[in-house]
Amino acid sequence: MVDPVIARAIRLVGFDVDGVMTDAGVYVGRVGDETVELKRFDIQDNVGLWLLRAVDIDAVIVSGRVSPATDVRARELPISAVVQDDAARKLEAFDQLLAARGLSMGEAAFVGDDLPDLPVLQRVALPVAVANAVPEVQAAAAYVTQAEGGRGAVREVCETLLKARGEWDRAVQEYLSERDGVSAEFERNA
Amino acid sequence: MVDPVIARAIRLVGFDVDGVMTDAGVYVGRVGDETVELKRFDIQDNVGLWLLRAVDIDAVIVSGRVSPATDVRARELPISAVVQDDAARKLEAFDQLLAARGLSMGEAAFVGDDLPDLPVLQRVALPVAVANAVPEVQAAAAYVTQAEGGRGAVREVCETLLKARGEWDRAVQEYLSERDGVSAEFERNA
Amino acid sequence: MVDPVIARAIRLVGFDVDGVMTDAGVYVGRVGDETVELKRFDIQDNVGLWLLRAVDIDAVIVSGRVSPATDVRARELPISAVVQDDAARKLEAFDQLLAARGLSMGEAAFVGDDLPDLPVLQRVALPVAVANAVPEVQAAAAYVTQAEGGRGAVREVCETLLKARGEWDRAVQEYLSERDGVSAEFERNA
Amino acid sequence: MVDPVIARAIRLVGFDVDGVMTDAGVYVGRVGDETVELKRFDIQDNVGLWLLRAVDIDAVIVSGRVSPATDVRARELPISAVVQDDAARKLEAFDQLLAARGLSMGEAAFVGDDLPDLPVLQRVALPVAVANAVPEVQAAAAYVTQAEGGRGAVREVCETLLKARGEWDRAVQEYLSERDGVSAEFERNA
Repeated sequence: MVDPVIARAIRLVGFDVDGVMTDAGVYVGRVGDETVELKRFDIQDNVGLWLLRAVDIDAVIVSGRVSPATDVRARELPISAVVQDDAARKLEAFDQLLAARGLSMGEAAFVGDDLPDLPVLQRVALPVAVANAVPEVQAAAAYVTQAEGGRGAVREVCETLLKARGEWDRAVQEYLSERDGVSAEFERNA
Repeated sequence: MVDPVIARAIRLVGFDVDGVMTDAGVYVGRVGDETVELKRFDIQDNVGLWLLRAVDIDAVIVSGRVSPATDVRARELPISAVVQDDAARKLEAFDQLLAARGLSMGEAAFVGDDLPDLPVLQRVALPVAVANAVPEVQAAAAYVTQAEGGRGAVREVCETLLKARGEWDRAVQEYLSERDGVSAEFERNA
Repeated sequence: MVDPVIARAIRLVGFDVDGVMTDAGVYVGRVGDETVELKRFDIQDNVGLWLLRAVDIDAVIVSGRVSPATDVRARELPISAVVQDDAARKLEAFDQLLAARGLSMGEAAFVGDDLPDLPVLQRVALPVAVANAVPEVQAAAAYVTQAEGGRGAVREVCETLLKARGEWDRAVQEYLSERDGVSAEFERNA
Repeated sequence: MVDPVIARAIRLVGFDVDGVMTDAGVYVGRVGDETVELKRFDIQDNVGLWLLRAVDIDAVIVSGRVSPATDVRARELPISAVVQDDAARKLEAFDQLLAARGLSMGEAAFVGDDLPDLPVLQRVALPVAVANAVPEVQAAAAYVTQAEGGRGAVREVCETLLKARGEWDRAVQEYLSERDGVSAEFERNA
């Protein structure tokens, strides 16, 4: 469970990529002269992130690797910033993201799976570990997801946070009412 | 179990893609300048859909995302229509598909896994949720598959529907008899 | 268990591809203008097939779909023929493969997972179903593997067959002795 | 458990690729005229290998297949040599790697999953099998990992070895202290 008082203070959630938005797998090879790296993301995470956005919680990505796959995936999602630092120095990057938004660590959550996430997890108000996180990261978390990264963990974090804030049911109803019945927007898209 | 009376009334089955025909994973990255998105489909679904076609039940795809992978996969299958709406407004699209065929919601089944499927599931005669569907979708379903999306769920829906209609054994026998023995068609393909 | 008398009569093993050499998944999409289909094969199958070859048992592939992935994979393996028929008419293809080698159904095994494999499985001396085979195929098999397709099933078939023939230990020893110590071949490859 | 005396003598760890750094799956197909082979590697292995490097243990790759995917993956990791021999003759290659570094088999560990790894495993001071190794390889190992290849096995080997040497806690602390707080290096990367 997540403390409702802490949950209501959250204004921004930071997500690691490998092991959190994915199951830590990278699909690597070559196509002709091009190096390729694919990652497996989970589409059920999408609705979770859109519901987070619906209640004005900011979502950002802070990765310790540089991968075009992360950029491609982020473009589909309501993610306001993507930082990829190949030296896995996440704390400074996260500090700058908060500062740019006028937010403090007390208004932030972070979701991680491995040692590079620890410096950030030790400072945010709501440190979250995924089910597949290494023991050191699980020990630092206020909440460990039941779902694994890339298999529902991001969706679970969004849902758990919104439920602790008492906003889940309303967010779902709004999401559904926008998609129920014939809409002028659909006519234009069709 | 599926009610035999309802099953016999079904003339069309709508399938969501991500989470139903796949396990909700997307394999994302870049090859040179090209953005790539692969999806993992399950070949055992093929025979199920061909048996559905054999008893004149129409199959359509209604996805809440736009992905070339869905088009590529649909071309291999007996799917009569593919709708991909990136605003995830499925109800109007499904309504139009039914109207174009002179069918009603009472003659339709739909298979889904997530919130965007709910407006359709709440109206069709036979709403089906896959094993990996979110709780809201499972609650709206008359039948929840034992198999997960991308791991047999579509095949299971086809088999369950045909068995409830009492048509499974005949459909399988016809499928096999067409492939048993030497055929003139094979000679031409060889 | 496999009957030793039947096992010793086997001169050729036919393998289906999707669901047998893979877990039935296909990874589908587009790269620029090109349609792409990847399949996930299991490298532990390789040694099994090489050991089969070492005792002069022929291995062939008979698939009911056409996919370049199957050709690419077959080139790495000791497979003497690859038939891909997109109408899934396998019996005639398998008959021709046997005839070309002067073999009978009594000297053949086949490994399958789905309805298109049944006409062949009903005729060979040793019909094998993988753990993930549909019920109709499992019912027709003399042996059902413990491993799933693409996760050790082919290796298990090879090992089970060689053990039933009393040839496993010798084949493994020969395989290892060829790789133990410094060899002139390695010098040339290095 | 790993014997602390043996663990402290280790100066080099050799890793097989398929089945050890991956789950033995290869994703094979064609993009236009190009043959493609992707492999799924696990990002949690990265930190393990960097911690090994931090205590001056050398890591090398010895594969029995030739695959560009292995080269691409190795470039991201602190791996000092990559040998890919398509005849799966690993012993001579490993011998040469040791000789070039002035090391003996008594200072080496090797991690494998299949028969081609046996000649090396039978000679090193610390033979390790992954959880998915074939029975012959598990029987030859002093230690069998709980994690499967491509799902944490490499990370587990690194952690188990460092813990048996009494160096894990210090290595983790150093890794974290380098990433905690604002660093001049980050400024330059940003």
